[in-house]
Amino acid sequence: MYKATIIIKLKKGVLNPEGRTILRALNFLGYNEVKDAKTFKSMELLIEGDDEEKIKERVDEMCRKLLANPVIHDYEIKLEKIE
Amino acid sequence: MYKATIIIKLKKGVLNPEGRTILRALNFLGYNEVKDAKTFKSMELLIEGDDEEKIKERVDEMCRKLLANPVIHDYEIKLEKIE
Repeated sequence: MYKATIIIKLKKGVLNPEGRTILRALNFLGYNEVKDAKTFKSMELLIEGDDEEKIKERVDEMCRKLLANPVIHDYEIKLEKIE
Repeated sequence: MYKATIIIKLKKGVLNPEGRTILRALNFLGYNEVKDAKTFKSMELLIEGDDEEKIKERVDEMCRKLLANPVIHDYEIKLEKIE
């Protein structure tokens, strides 16, 4: 069993309006030390199997096919063996 | 300057419909090895200052006041010193 953590970020140059809104709201609330805010999406998948290489390949395929939009997103995959 | 990474997860027992949908979609696409899927929200804040303790306290306050909903969310804060 593996736990795959997938982090999906917007590519450099793609606007992040949610982050801008958070930045403005924090500044408005008096947190003027905050200079930038970016949001991203993460997910954890629980995956059956033992072959780490193969699982990594399959998760990469899932990202390309369903989870991320390759036009605007970059993604990272971390695998961790669990019981 | 510090980079604060905030990870906001749903509390145990709170339904995660987005994760359920992803799980079903992956299974439907033939990825039957995926047994569970959970999504969560992350953000990176760029924060001016040198006092790590104080920054941590302020970021915790931001989470309680604006970024997370303490009724349904748990959150983690990681601080990293940058140039």
